[in-house]
Amino acid sequence: MNQQMRGKQSVELANSVRILSSASIVGAKEGEGPLSDFFDVIGSDPMFGCESWEEAESVLQKEAAQMAIGKAGLKPSEIRMMFAGDLLAQSIASSFGLVDLQIPIYGLYGACSTMGESLALGALSVSAGYGEYILCLTSSHFGSAEKEFRYPLEYGSQRPLSATWTVTGSGACVLGTTGGRAKITGVTTGKIVDFGLKDSQNMGACMAPAACDTIYQNLMDFQRLPEDYDKIITGDLGSIGQTILLDLLKDKGFDISKQHMDCGMKIFDAKTQDTHAGGSGCGCAATVFASYIMSRLAMREWKRILFVPTGALLSKVSFNEGQSVPGIAHGVVVEALEKGE
Amino acid sequence: MNQQMRGKQSVELANSVRILSSASIVGAKEGEGPLSDFFDVIGSDPMFGCESWEEAESVLQKEAAQMAIGKAGLKPSEIRMMFAGDLLAQSIASSFGLVDLQIPIYGLYGACSTMGESLALGALSVSAGYGEYILCLTSSHFGSAEKEFRYPLEYGSQRPLSATWTVTGSGACVLGTTGGRAKITGVTTGKIVDFGLKDSQNMGACMAPAACDTIYQNLMDFQRLPEDYDKIITGDLGSIGQTILLDLLKDKGFDISKQHMDCGMKIFDAKTQDTHAGGSGCGCAATVFASYIMSRLAMREWKRILFVPTGALLSKVSFNEGQSVPGIAHGVVVEALEKGE
Repeated sequence: MNQQMRGKQSVELANSVRILSSASIVGAKEGEGPLSDFFDVIGSDPMFGCESWEEAESVLQKEAAQMAIGKAGLKPSEIRMMFAGDLLAQSIASSFGLVDLQIPIYGLYGACSTMGESLALGALSVSAGYGEYILCLTSSHFGSAEKEFRYPLEYGSQRPLSATWTVTGSGACVLGTTGGRAKITGVTTGKIVDFGLKDSQNMGACMAPAACDTIYQNLMDFQRLPEDYDKIITGDLGSIGQTILLDLLKDKGFDISKQHMDCGMKIFDAKTQDTHAGGSGCGCAATVFASYIMSRLAMREWKRILFVPTGALLSKVSFNEGQSVPGIAHGVVVEALEKGE
Repeated sequence: MNQQMRGKQSVELANSVRILSSASIVGAKEGEGPLSDFFDVIGSDPMFGCESWEEAESVLQKEAAQMAIGKAGLKPSEIRMMFAGDLLAQSIASSFGLVDLQIPIYGLYGACSTMGESLALGALSVSAGYGEYILCLTSSHFGSAEKEFRYPLEYGSQRPLSATWTVTGSGACVLGTTGGRAKITGVTTGKIVDFGLKDSQNMGACMAPAACDTIYQNLMDFQRLPEDYDKIITGDLGSIGQTILLDLLKDKGFDISKQHMDCGMKIFDAKTQDTHAGGSGCGCAATVFASYIMSRLAMREWKRILFVPTGALLSKVSFNEGQSVPGIAHGVVVEALEKGE
């Protein structure tokens, strides 16, 4: 079956992989942003009825999972396995959020690239016949992420303009073999890329080299040009990361300025919502994919996109020990269904 | 290809998956234990030449990876992708340890079940034709784990007899399609199992229900009896977790007391090494698998084993917030090669 491998890092899926359903749940701030109409649920309570940020994030994952499964007309017991993870230490949002579903799970850590990793591994598994239905999801929460990586909210720390705002939300997709609203046709697995940058308040700059690496490799492996995609969509580079990405790819001979879109720049209106460089977090790419992006594909407004969520591989320990912030990005090729497909 | 799926949670691999090589590196205490002769490298310096426990753990992963790749007669550039993770928040041991190899990576979080998760996803990928050579690895370090989950070492906290001792070490395997020293023939994906236990100093008890669930499901899915395996090997249940596992499985109609072995009980001599219930950590199952277990399979002393590393899905935040400690276990069926295979 080796003919599925493309170039150095990619796989062209040999069998049909469909996105049967997608679901998104976000917080109030995301619900006030430009994509408001596309989300399934907008919660007004940032605690989502819970007693801690972490529990709230778990509820987000559980809700997104249940909605996606329901939209696909399935029950949790019909899902063969799921690929999930989150930003919190030891991925507790996923563990506690998904335990009740009783679906076999492979836990992931890809920082904010997790939705790409999850869709990639889910698609590889469906194509190989390892499951009729596979669930892919991730989440983030502004409160739990600030607690995990930065300062207590009560401290009221000022944020530099290069900083991003962690999205409160979870996005989930059910993959299968037939029907559905879009198809996954290829995957490009990312490498860890470290340019030595150390500013955790400028993660767009830290992740842009990884996004460049994966997009470049995807174009090489599939022998495509940027215009072969209607959109090339990164996760949460933000405005500063976007500038760097476009520059880096130009140096490699590719101009993607017409195709590029960043979920972090799309989910908030930076001018009115005080989100500086844009949105971020696993939930940023996941909720934008499960709502806005999926709707564009289902409407056949976009025929083929490259979805490249980006992750910054730092922890507060590595940061405090003076380490750099390496990045990673996983690429997933998603296409609209032809009429009758 | 759906005929590969077995029962509810398992896959019988359709194509040949071989373990081409395995490598292990451990610390001094592990090197003084009963498995001393089987490890490739025993380090005398717990810092492995580094300035922090986290960096030391990264060095362990890098060394194990390079040894395994070298033993397989390969170069890092020939490895199509790798599956890796560790116990630390945001998996920094893997990110910083593996960045220099420049191999596409899927980051995992399965707590101490990670070697099972890594081998499972690696084997599924090789069988599906997604890579000629795939690297599977994980690590743990006593110093970094105590810092991550428990008390400062300088505090000299007393440990209850139910506690385990985190193994300092990393184990790595290169998978391929031909040749090699053993073969992977099946995989059982684990579910998160939560019996509501909250004692993070008795993780064997927290993980035993998950081990029971996965072993039971493996036997059902493949329609096997315990005696169809020469060994059923858990990761780090320790002596208390073992007792619970055997009891739980007896309640379900299976007596595995003759086949059961626990890596945590094997790696240390609890009586003379003051390790209480046994060894633990991702590196426990990984180093014992890459050394002792692989040697028994290569010698054909064992014909077929079920390897079931077990993970406790807690973080210090979830623990401090009064949450329970759910468990997970992934099963991998490994068989000796027939003569001439």
